[in-house]
Amino acid sequence: MYNLAKRLFPICRSITGNGVRQTLSILREYIPLNVVEVPSGTRAFDWTVPDEWNITDAYVNDEYNHRVIDFRRSNLHVVGYSHPVKGWVSGGELMSHLHTLTDKPTAIPYVTSYYNRTWGFCLPFYDLKELYGRRYYVCVDSTLRPGSLTYGELIIPGESRAEILLSTYTCHPSLANDNLSGVVMTTFLAQELLRRKNRYTYRIIFIPETIGAIVYLSRHYREMQAKTIAGYAITCVGTEGRFSYVPSRHPESLTNRATYSTVRGRDCYDYSDRGSDERQYCSPGIDLPVGSLMRQKYHVYRQYHTSDDNLSFISEKGLQESLAMYLSCLDTIENNREWTAVHPCEPQLGRRGLYNKITQDFMAHADGSDLLTIAGNAGLPMDTAIATAKVLHEQGLII
Amino acid sequence: MYNLAKRLFPICRSITGNGVRQTLSILREYIPLNVVEVPSGTRAFDWTVPDEWNITDAYVNDEYNHRVIDFRRSNLHVVGYSHPVKGWVSGGELMSHLHTLTDKPTAIPYVTSYYNRTWGFCLPFYDLKELYGRRYYVCVDSTLRPGSLTYGELIIPGESRAEILLSTYTCHPSLANDNLSGVVMTTFLAQELLRRKNRYTYRIIFIPETIGAIVYLSRHYREMQAKTIAGYAITCVGTEGRFSYVPSRHPESLTNRATYSTVRGRDCYDYSDRGSDERQYCSPGIDLPVGSLMRQKYHVYRQYHTSDDNLSFISEKGLQESLAMYLSCLDTIENNREWTAVHPCEPQLGRRGLYNKITQDFMAHADGSDLLTIAGNAGLPMDTAIATAKVLHEQGLII
Amino acid sequence: MYNLAKRLFPICRSITGNGVRQTLSILREYIPLNVVEVPSGTRAFDWTVPDEWNITDAYVNDEYNHRVIDFRRSNLHVVGYSHPVKGWVSGGELMSHLHTLTDKPTAIPYVTSYYNRTWGFCLPFYDLKELYGRRYYVCVDSTLRPGSLTYGELIIPGESRAEILLSTYTCHPSLANDNLSGVVMTTFLAQELLRRKNRYTYRIIFIPETIGAIVYLSRHYREMQAKTIAGYAITCVGTEGRFSYVPSRHPESLTNRATYSTVRGRDCYDYSDRGSDERQYCSPGIDLPVGSLMRQKYHVYRQYHTSDDNLSFISEKGLQESLAMYLSCLDTIENNREWTAVHPCEPQLGRRGLYNKITQDFMAHADGSDLLTIAGNAGLPMDTAIATAKVLHEQGLII
Repeated sequence: MYNLAKRLFPICRSITGNGVRQTLSILREYIPLNVVEVPSGTRAFDWTVPDEWNITDAYVNDEYNHRVIDFRRSNLHVVGYSHPVKGWVSGGELMSHLHTLTDKPTAIPYVTSYYNRTWGFCLPFYDLKELYGRRYYVCVDSTLRPGSLTYGELIIPGESRAEILLSTYTCHPSLANDNLSGVVMTTFLAQELLRRKNRYTYRIIFIPETIGAIVYLSRHYREMQAKTIAGYAITCVGTEGRFSYVPSRHPESLTNRATYSTVRGRDCYDYSDRGSDERQYCSPGIDLPVGSLMRQKYHVYRQYHTSDDNLSFISEKGLQESLAMYLSCLDTIENNREWTAVHPCEPQLGRRGLYNKITQDFMAHADGSDLLTIAGNAGLPMDTAIATAKVLHEQGLII
Repeated sequence: MYNLAKRLFPICRSITGNGVRQTLSILREYIPLNVVEVPSGTRAFDWTVPDEWNITDAYVNDEYNHRVIDFRRSNLHVVGYSHPVKGWVSGGELMSHLHTLTDKPTAIPYVTSYYNRTWGFCLPFYDLKELYGRRYYVCVDSTLRPGSLTYGELIIPGESRAEILLSTYTCHPSLANDNLSGVVMTTFLAQELLRRKNRYTYRIIFIPETIGAIVYLSRHYREMQAKTIAGYAITCVGTEGRFSYVPSRHPESLTNRATYSTVRGRDCYDYSDRGSDERQYCSPGIDLPVGSLMRQKYHVYRQYHTSDDNLSFISEKGLQESLAMYLSCLDTIENNREWTAVHPCEPQLGRRGLYNKITQDFMAHADGSDLLTIAGNAGLPMDTAIATAKVLHEQGLII
Repeated sequence: MYNLAKRLFPICRSITGNGVRQTLSILREYIPLNVVEVPSGTRAFDWTVPDEWNITDAYVNDEYNHRVIDFRRSNLHVVGYSHPVKGWVSGGELMSHLHTLTDKPTAIPYVTSYYNRTWGFCLPFYDLKELYGRRYYVCVDSTLRPGSLTYGELIIPGESRAEILLSTYTCHPSLANDNLSGVVMTTFLAQELLRRKNRYTYRIIFIPETIGAIVYLSRHYREMQAKTIAGYAITCVGTEGRFSYVPSRHPESLTNRATYSTVRGRDCYDYSDRGSDERQYCSPGIDLPVGSLMRQKYHVYRQYHTSDDNLSFISEKGLQESLAMYLSCLDTIENNREWTAVHPCEPQLGRRGLYNKITQDFMAHADGSDLLTIAGNAGLPMDTAIATAKVLHEQGLII
């Protein structure tokens, strides 16, 4: 996974444009994504698909024609959705178009301006101090005009038409944890799900954040409301930090119950801490059961939305652990059947070589509840409960 | 308000009699109260309206004809509902008719005997020690005979026929906090409600405690059960102490929810701590949603039911704060509409200049719940929630 | 009760056999038990009634013909359900048939092997150290062949056909607390209930643990499901330790509510700590509301399932206290009627000499709830609530 992240890292992505197309095209080497284009100007609930933005170069030259800020060194140097500009500006005017972080003076901040047309550059605070010249030549070689918004979609049919939604966002440029990690891990998760025989159907989407989720929902929400039993907004899964979970808005959702019972020792958040596309999926009128399972959460880790969120901040180990944890959560959901004891009273576990506290506790609560409830009441970890259900079912003791 | 309290303070009120009539007549200078007389002997559920009591003078003279206890100095000196008596009694017999408080030796206690016919005097414990004479001349110049129970009532119609009950009691003589404060503040609250355009109808009653509430309910309870959505028994609102709340019996009543969300940092009580007319309003078979919002609670403050509960114990500031808090609670109730987001997903708050954490949090929970629920889920103070709802509604984002 | 326990103590009981018959025959001197025989081989849900086991003698002789282990000294010396054996065995082979407890080296452990045919002896660890001989003569003079399982049953009809189940087990040999205490106390409880006029019908059964409960349920569970409103699995009630309660599986059962409100200061357990026949009564498909009220719980006290659980471990005082507490719990259940105030508002308690905080609190919650709920809401101990309900009902204030 880390190698895929390395390959995708340099591409300049945004909520629209060729960076996203290039990214999805690389992902198609791994999984059979269906790529969809939605024209600029398309209405989506209260929103409109914006013009498409593409950029080839951007720089600021001093009077000696030295590139003092250079897009080619980092695509974070230019404010996302900067309109084209070319010409000399005074030092003062340049200053009003620069973005920097005094509390992280060595890092380039990540700034965008999707809906207010402007241009700008981002740079480390320490570099800002060198810019005391009288005038500068500014160039943003971008285009911002009607085009389309691009997303990827993969439906993996299962035994049941009931669905699990996996959503990740592709709109961030060279930022590793937020959210190349999500893009990469979701790709490998999809690969694994393609290999398996699944009980549920999986709807896996690679979209730009916010506007992409809104556009996707505006086309599919009735179907998704009818089918979706659980789902995750996948982001920030590349580090080796503790797991974090932002629950879905309805506390008793299957996603929440499955995640709580599977991911132990996690950092606990509330729905009020939401920040990614669970905002759209859980919104009133949509009401999908979607949470977000991460390692350290966006906003919480120091490198967030700066050039420090780079390839050295994530690791293959972190990605693998996250993938394994997501698979565990999906196992919990896939195995969350209702189980009922076949015989009233305890069965004679002894003559089957199954007499122990675990099987007894399971049988004592196999009253037609779902496995999450049985495991909770019996005090069993979810993986133990899954294994126990399998044995007891094979022995004809539960149905 | 304090001036009105000063004017009402000297009047000798009881559960019946001219003191109540005089009090209501003064209140009619402020608000258009309807004054109702209920004849003695009228049945009200398990009770009967008692004879009417009036008193013009009462005193105890020593053998030298000095007034050693004098009703004209404080109407608390005579036990409420003392029957007429005139003549010499021995020091020992007098003693058995005196009431005093050893733990508050400088205060006159407030004592009544509505349903056991007797007579008595109240005095400070320190004064009791002076009464070592052999005999005394006792005079209670009262009448206790069929008459009527008097109460005041004001209905302020609102847009809706659904009602909010505001009940305060007029039966206490010269006691400032309990309950001139309630009488005065309810009068000014009624004035303010008369000035406003209200969503709900207000039923405002000035009644003697217990028997008055029972009599009033016996005549109106079916109508009140059908209409009342919230209500308060108003008492002890004249000091500057912390707010206290005795909740209605059903924990989830609108009155409780509105009060809890509006009055922060209050002293919390339980329905088991009830003591005023919420006892009747919440009783089984009546079941109205009535709580009691006070400053320091009766029984809790040291001056309670003694001559120390006088005009120096209350203040204009305390009364004004209580009035403001009651208005806030009523604002909460009046504004507790259900709000539903117009668009699925987040609306584009940015292009309306409304993009902030508060509007986002509000929209995230505008799922058709009432405002109290939305504010609770969004973690917003109630006044913020009311203001936010107004703006979002004007912008067509919630209905 | 202690004398009855002394008389029953020496009898060698098991899940079947003459020891049980002899025990039930002695109990029939006290209460009119109906004794039922269920033939070996009878199916009961997932189980089958096993062969009947009887034993007359068992011993181990050394080479000098000395009885080094002797059933006649304690019936715990032989493993329950040991099949017949007679002959010389090597010291090594004997060793593989011996059971001992290194952590309780002076006590004989209690061991059974109902469903795996074997033979064995139990002895104190200190005695094991003496057995260094080359060979031993082993004799188990038992029979293990088709016969029947024996249980006792007593139905005491009440005003209502609704039933309370009292179940205790008779299958343990010379162990005093577990469970002669239960057998004896249940007998005296039944005597007391026979003397009283009861609201509910009592189903009182003396059965072998597990297999007996399963057999009994397989014959009666539909009827019991229709009728049973509460019940207890009675065991370990002979000591003077604190009361312990294992609740029924459904937390809000009447049995749980009644026990919690009656038995104060108890050790609290969870349904996961279950261990006796509540396992069967509460199992999915049976779902009876049966808990288990004990003194110190099985598994918890040190003497459990060893020869130290003898007559010196229990006392008449302990048995009497347990009997009294069970009667209190049954009083709570028998008196748990629904009460409704006759008059809306508070009744005039004063003129009936009933004006106090207890009656006021009761009346304030007499809204048609059952007495357990009223007592809980009014903060009254259950015995106070029962007495108060009686007075208020007599005065015509509640129905």
